Amino acid sequence: MAKKVVIIGAVALGPKVACRLRRLDAEAEITLLDRDDRISYGGCGIPYYVGGDVNDIEDLCKTTSHTLRDAAFFKNNKGVTVMTRTEALAIDRRDRKVLVRHLDTGEEEYLPYDKLVLATGARAVRPPFPGADHPRVLTVSDLHDAERLKSQMAAGKIAKAVVIGAGAIGLEISEALTDLWGISTTLVEMEDQVLPTLLGKCIARLAAAELTRHGVELLLETKVLEVAENEENGKLLVRTSAGNLEVDVVVLAAGVRANTSLAREAGLAIGTYGGISVDRRLRTSDPHIYAGGDCVEVRNLISGENIPMALGSLANRQGRIIATNINGGQSHFRGTVGTFCLKLFDFGIGKAGLTFRQARETGYDPVYAVVSQADHAHFYPSSELIYISLLADRKSRKILGIEAAGKNGDAVKARVDTVAVLLRHGVDVDEICSLEIGYAPPFASAMDVVNNAGNALDNILAGGSRPVDAADFLYEFRHKTVRVLDVRGEKEATPFMAKYGERWLNIPQDQLRRRVEEIDPEEELFLLCDTGPRSYEAQVFLASRGRMKTRNIQGGFAMIRLIAPDFV
Amino acid sequence: MAKKVVIIGAVALGPKVACRLRRLDAEAEITLLDRDDRISYGGCGIPYYVGGDVNDIEDLCKTTSHTLRDAAFFKNNKGVTVMTRTEALAIDRRDRKVLVRHLDTGEEEYLPYDKLVLATGARAVRPPFPGADHPRVLTVSDLHDAERLKSQMAAGKIAKAVVIGAGAIGLEISEALTDLWGISTTLVEMEDQVLPTLLGKCIARLAAAELTRHGVELLLETKVLEVAENEENGKLLVRTSAGNLEVDVVVLAAGVRANTSLAREAGLAIGTYGGISVDRRLRTSDPHIYAGGDCVEVRNLISGENIPMALGSLANRQGRIIATNINGGQSHFRGTVGTFCLKLFDFGIGKAGLTFRQARETGYDPVYAVVSQADHAHFYPSSELIYISLLADRKSRKILGIEAAGKNGDAVKARVDTVAVLLRHGVDVDEICSLEIGYAPPFASAMDVVNNAGNALDNILAGGSRPVDAADFLYEFRHKTVRVLDVRGEKEATPFMAKYGERWLNIPQDQLRRRVEEIDPEEELFLLCDTGPRSYEAQVFLASRGRMKTRNIQGGFAMIRLIAPDFV
Repeated sequence: MAKKVVIIGAVALGPKVACRLRRLDAEAEITLLDRDDRISYGGCGIPYYVGGDVNDIEDLCKTTSHTLRDAAFFKNNKGVTVMTRTEALAIDRRDRKVLVRHLDTGEEEYLPYDKLVLATGARAVRPPFPGADHPRVLTVSDLHDAERLKSQMAAGKIAKAVVIGAGAIGLEISEALTDLWGISTTLVEMEDQVLPTLLGKCIARLAAAELTRHGVELLLETKVLEVAENEENGKLLVRTSAGNLEVDVVVLAAGVRANTSLAREAGLAIGTYGGISVDRRLRTSDPHIYAGGDCVEVRNLISGENIPMALGSLANRQGRIIATNINGGQSHFRGTVGTFCLKLFDFGIGKAGLTFRQARETGYDPVYAVVSQADHAHFYPSSELIYISLLADRKSRKILGIEAAGKNGDAVKARVDTVAVLLRHGVDVDEICSLEIGYAPPFASAMDVVNNAGNALDNILAGGSRPVDAADFLYEFRHKTVRVLDVRGEKEATPFMAKYGERWLNIPQDQLRRRVEEIDPEEELFLLCDTGPRSYEAQVFLASRGRMKTRNIQGGFAMIRLIAPDFV
Repeated sequence: MAKKVVIIGAVALGPKVACRLRRLDAEAEITLLDRDDRISYGGCGIPYYVGGDVNDIEDLCKTTSHTLRDAAFFKNNKGVTVMTRTEALAIDRRDRKVLVRHLDTGEEEYLPYDKLVLATGARAVRPPFPGADHPRVLTVSDLHDAERLKSQMAAGKIAKAVVIGAGAIGLEISEALTDLWGISTTLVEMEDQVLPTLLGKCIARLAAAELTRHGVELLLETKVLEVAENEENGKLLVRTSAGNLEVDVVVLAAGVRANTSLAREAGLAIGTYGGISVDRRLRTSDPHIYAGGDCVEVRNLISGENIPMALGSLANRQGRIIATNINGGQSHFRGTVGTFCLKLFDFGIGKAGLTFRQARETGYDPVYAVVSQADHAHFYPSSELIYISLLADRKSRKILGIEAAGKNGDAVKARVDTVAVLLRHGVDVDEICSLEIGYAPPFASAMDVVNNAGNALDNILAGGSRPVDAADFLYEFRHKTVRVLDVRGEKEATPFMAKYGERWLNIPQDQLRRRVEEIDPEEELFLLCDTGPRSYEAQVFLASRGRMKTRNIQGGFAMIRLIAPDFV
């Protein structure tokens, strides 16, 4: 008899399970249901729809060959039954059936299943401040709010906006509002950096600088206390710990939470972080029920913790695995290393693994190196800088994470991805130094930026390089009297000497050997060059001449001029 | 006492060893010598100098901060002694000294060493046809020939050229001659494909099509028999097995051979393929002599063979390792997986691992999948197709290689690199299906092209997908009467039906379920869609309805229209 498979949730994982299962099993009776009328869409495309890169919302619901993935599509192309506007109310695990309500008619019925798949996704968190449920406090985790937001902008009704939450969605939406629509946007974040769960401070500062450069007002360490409507002018008054803002719309991007009420009520195991617990075959605690996507917890392969991870890419991979297993196969989802990327105005940003803070919380002794280097051979005409922060455990030398940013987003992502895919294999610093990625001058350097990130970290671990973050240098330089030794050429150093006088010492690298006696062995010095290698070399040389009190500014001036454009 | 280190060869590996060693050991007496006056240059940049992307030849010899890396640079910046125009004549291993001749004065002297490094590189192979040594038969493996070639072009002396050898250098030079200088260029290759040691037939065909599209005349399976000067008009007459060509210049790009005479004469072990044998610490058979770069053999980690591998990227990584080991460290070069990339006109091409042929010769039972898919989310405005060929061993499912091409070279290289770095870890097909690379619509699809290459290969190995190469389809379609079942929409299929009549059957995917009876279960059919997934799905569906004799055209029409632009 044909197997009955019911899938609850029809956005990303659900349709993937349905289509893959159909290809494996021509006879199975597959039913895909969703509360919404919009199904099978690229949710990660919403910010691009809002920002205008994607014109029509239906473009997010189409196949590569421009066919709308609606119920008829699933029926005719896939042989899959779709029920939209159908809500799953309860799971009867003993009799293996799901009680559903058809929202348009109010009718209820039981759908029997042999295997059930929970693809219930996640929903936007609404923080508990008064006014969080105001109708003009929009979330953009569903298409309907996104449509509302875009139509209001298109109607010219929005001049000012507040975005709450500087996570990925918050950043993407801030760009969307600012870039195409020219809306004066303030981004409010409780933590002291953007992308606090995704990036360490160093690359986060680059992201913050990119927001600022494009006119987004960024309020860090700021809490939203209340949203209220000003009855006189109809504006929204946003009270924050940093003062009040009057705007036309508030976009809430304070994270998402797994939708698990159905699973909970059915008595399925729920994890510590609120997602459905699944094994490596993506089965819940009931062997007839699978779950995947934003509603489950997955193992972080670096920290060992099980956490929810709301990413369309994981949902798709998991969907394929669930279909294989429902069909009697043995396919495993082993976990995630948290690979992530983001476009932010002219920057691509990527990361994988743990941040410095997460690594320390996990019990590692993390050390990181920051490098800046051109993505392509420096003599090749088209090249852009890439900034990489590479994190390892001091003792084991095991790589714990990588973060990167730069203007050539494909090239940034490439460097992150090559390290990301190795993380689960337990890669160490030395392997990154020799990492064998393709080389040709139009696409890389002979010693690529990712190799040099490994080399820089190796030098730090070996004790030869004693680094300081560019931001920490800026803080100390502004608040203390420590001087800079600039080993760049005279021409590069002159404007700095003019501005900072005696605090800015310039000895070009090619003069350092003969002028070393000019440097007091007891003086603390910050060493600076363009991107870092020459200041490191100077540090090593100075140490060999008894001048040990130097710190090498990681990423060099290439980093400083991004995070502190007014420094010179 | 300070350690004496002599390094023979000052292009890529030699300078790397010198500079790294200096940073590790402030006192070592480091001498770097080279027969040439040009040193420390990016040899891989020569085609870009010839083609005009790099203006001045000195740009290839400069640091990222535009300092010329000449003898003075090494003296002042690095504390390294450089002897140019100095040839190493013999190694006295017993007394640890090298006999050198200063070419300008004719003087000879012994340089004593504690450690010696051989960085003697490779030289262009001159095949044994008559005239191979004619002064206008240039190689471009050294800067002097490149300068000659460029100055002749700049002087307008070259209208027609022959390039011999369709390896990487041959392709890059063909582009350089054609693209900027508009020189009518014929590329001659003995084998039946371009890049015969680097690519399988499928991606090689894309490269060949790209050459043809840009006006390079490609003669495959063609041998050069003789080059002779026509005394009447001064032209070079190139006699080939496919006819004669009269040109102004011949560029020889028939591969390189390791320079090992010094090592041989000193009695050091030489490998099967003619390179110096080294261990994982990059020591030769004499523990006081290290060697690296183009003159050594390195282990191919997939085939297990030791082969020379002339790549600037490997030379740099090896240079760092040699310096570490000379300084008493324990750093290993474990081998190569043959990662490679190339820009060819508007295409980026990359590969890692073995080709199909190499895999079979190694004793594997290789199977490959070909996919074509957009690099970015299909709904995102900027995206380009990437073509991937993924190779695995049938029984073990171990990945043996990946090849890719596409217009966004950074994105092509990214996909190749993520698989490349895993090859030494013994990655299988299933890991590629779930490979966790970053996803955001501006940079990838939720199910990325590299994941789908894994999925397609998994489907082939599982027996559900029975593929045919686009080129094999074209051959059979032209020579036999097999018909095509086109499952694209009517609009896409119409021009093909007009041209091929009854041989072109169109049943759009959404009609296939109800029209399946139109298909004779006994008929052989080629299945076609845009890029492959729908034709695969059709194949699975047809098989479930007893129609087993179908073959799915890999990469779909996206592949056909590149390799056979005249097909419609």
